[in-house]
Amino acid sequence: MQRANESASADKFEEEVGRVMEQARELHESGASLLWKISNEEQSLRQKAISLESSIRRVRSSINSLVSKKLLDPKFASKLEEDLQRASSILTDGEAAAFLPAKAQGRFLRMFLGPINVRASRKEVQLKVKEEYNGYRDRTAFLFLLFPLTLLILKSWIWEGCLPAFPVQLYEAWLLFLYTGLAMRENILRANGSDIRPWWIYHHYCAMLMALVSLTWEIKRQPNCAQKQRGVELFLQWAMMQGVAMLLQNRYQRQRLYTRIALGKANRMDVVWGETAGVDGQLWVLCPILFVMQGFEAYVGLLLLKTAFVGVVTEWQVICCGILLVLMAVGNFINTIQTLMTKSRFKAKMKRSKSKAELD
Amino acid sequence: MQRANESASADKFEEEVGRVMEQARELHESGASLLWKISNEEQSLRQKAISLESSIRRVRSSINSLVSKKLLDPKFASKLEEDLQRASSILTDGEAAAFLPAKAQGRFLRMFLGPINVRASRKEVQLKVKEEYNGYRDRTAFLFLLFPLTLLILKSWIWEGCLPAFPVQLYEAWLLFLYTGLAMRENILRANGSDIRPWWIYHHYCAMLMALVSLTWEIKRQPNCAQKQRGVELFLQWAMMQGVAMLLQNRYQRQRLYTRIALGKANRMDVVWGETAGVDGQLWVLCPILFVMQGFEAYVGLLLLKTAFVGVVTEWQVICCGILLVLMAVGNFINTIQTLMTKSRFKAKMKRSKSKAELD
Repeated sequence: MQRANESASADKFEEEVGRVMEQARELHESGASLLWKISNEEQSLRQKAISLESSIRRVRSSINSLVSKKLLDPKFASKLEEDLQRASSILTDGEAAAFLPAKAQGRFLRMFLGPINVRASRKEVQLKVKEEYNGYRDRTAFLFLLFPLTLLILKSWIWEGCLPAFPVQLYEAWLLFLYTGLAMRENILRANGSDIRPWWIYHHYCAMLMALVSLTWEIKRQPNCAQKQRGVELFLQWAMMQGVAMLLQNRYQRQRLYTRIALGKANRMDVVWGETAGVDGQLWVLCPILFVMQGFEAYVGLLLLKTAFVGVVTEWQVICCGILLVLMAVGNFINTIQTLMTKSRFKAKMKRSKSKAELD
Repeated sequence: MQRANESASADKFEEEVGRVMEQARELHESGASLLWKISNEEQSLRQKAISLESSIRRVRSSINSLVSKKLLDPKFASKLEEDLQRASSILTDGEAAAFLPAKAQGRFLRMFLGPINVRASRKEVQLKVKEEYNGYRDRTAFLFLLFPLTLLILKSWIWEGCLPAFPVQLYEAWLLFLYTGLAMRENILRANGSDIRPWWIYHHYCAMLMALVSLTWEIKRQPNCAQKQRGVELFLQWAMMQGVAMLLQNRYQRQRLYTRIALGKANRMDVVWGETAGVDGQLWVLCPILFVMQGFEAYVGLLLLKTAFVGVVTEWQVICCGILLVLMAVGNFINTIQTLMTKSRFKAKMKRSKSKAELD
């Protein structure tokens, strides 16, 4: 009886294991065939997207050349141009965007991550990535404000005007981590089709370098540390201002993103045109603060250079940080101006086409 | 005539722009429908893969319980177990693996990259990622050997026994960059289903922390720098040994990967069983070197702690680096032993089943 039982359950298990084996094989095959099918269909869509992109370019350039030879009515040409822009928006902002050839991932990501692909194929995932980036900036902006503030308060209350090395170095290590994370996230956003200006990424590379250099910078102690630590103190003050500016910038950009998503729901292709709607007022609060901050950044940089050349502190780190700060201030200034100019040119265009539409 | 020409070309362009617009819409729709289809089919494969995984677990546990109650012949059970292992290999190592739910991406990657997915869906991409990781290790192993060697040679030839701060700090910054890159790549490999031991990743976190701490470590100058720089010198010597060990380890692991790919071509499901084939000889060269290195690592760590407590150098960085080195040495030792034990247990099993097969 025992034997018979045993052999029955053995048969049962053999059958069951065979079934499992069969299922695994089937799954393997359907997985392989799905991957193959996906890759084929993607290939065909990719070719169509590329050819459409080049047709748009071709039509646009021949319209422009006819207008310049006065063979086409400029008003009519600008209507055509608008349609082309709309088609191009559908292509780069819609579901087909996943099939356009990826922008080459920058050297920065390759250096840290290797050849892995960081592009999300779905639009909603891309928007989630952007949302997380904004959330990250929000969280860090608060710390950006709190960390140096705490250091400065403790300095005058407890440390009697003389910063100890460890908390400052901890802060510098945090800055290095923060800027590395920002630079990575921005490179990922770029790979996902964001139109972030390359300068802002370079700016974060500079900031990473500065945090690294400042880590090697010896924090001087007594006697006379008020004078020796003047550079660190200025730097902390500038960092606090940076925190305020980041908070304001985040508010502004978040609203822009919400406008984008809201419009995208109504009609995804209109997204590009609606970007600056509704948040103009805030720009006039943001800009002066940005300019003041850039001025202060350059001032701190020049002050560092001065202390290095007058001879109070002669470490190479001081010169290096000074140059980096001035460089970042100038670059930020130029790029803010360029952004403002693009926006105002765009607004003028919008106004013109609106009033034209009303006239018609 | 001019007018007529103009209107003809206007019509032509209007038509062409309309066509472009139509194509963009079509592409958008087929892109959306392809993404939708992919997501549906993936969903269904994912469910099948999950249910198959749980069946394998269920059958395996009931076989085990029957064997322990002596209701099933152990020989027959081990044959069934082998088949189950094979099915599970197909599932986790074959094309269907892309549809198993992803291992949660570690906190480390999320901290730097945000919520982006770093998992490659195709097996060949995953192998490429692993190959690049090995290449990266190869390249850095040479630098690992060269960089400290150069520093030590220059020290005795040109710098008269006294290392200047800048080159050492440059080296430390490079170490920080290197270990960050390694930790990222290893986390990515893990997310792609690699069976890399978690300890090796923790080890790189420790090394990152040590590089960061050593950056803040003031490099003492004259007078008496031979004594003050004893810690740095020991560290550089250890780093050179590390370079040699990395080169050997890379050779060994690369050969393992090639065996894997070669076997995978013949029969992908046998991969797991063939891993240790053909490279046993090298393991007996590699192991003693690894143990000597771990011993030296612990020795350097203890020496640093001693200098800190005897009072020659009393900076917190010395204590921190000492503790980290001892921790890494102990962890490396335990994990090397565990790896060796797994391998020898596995080999014994292989031998048994082989001799049994010959008997049968």
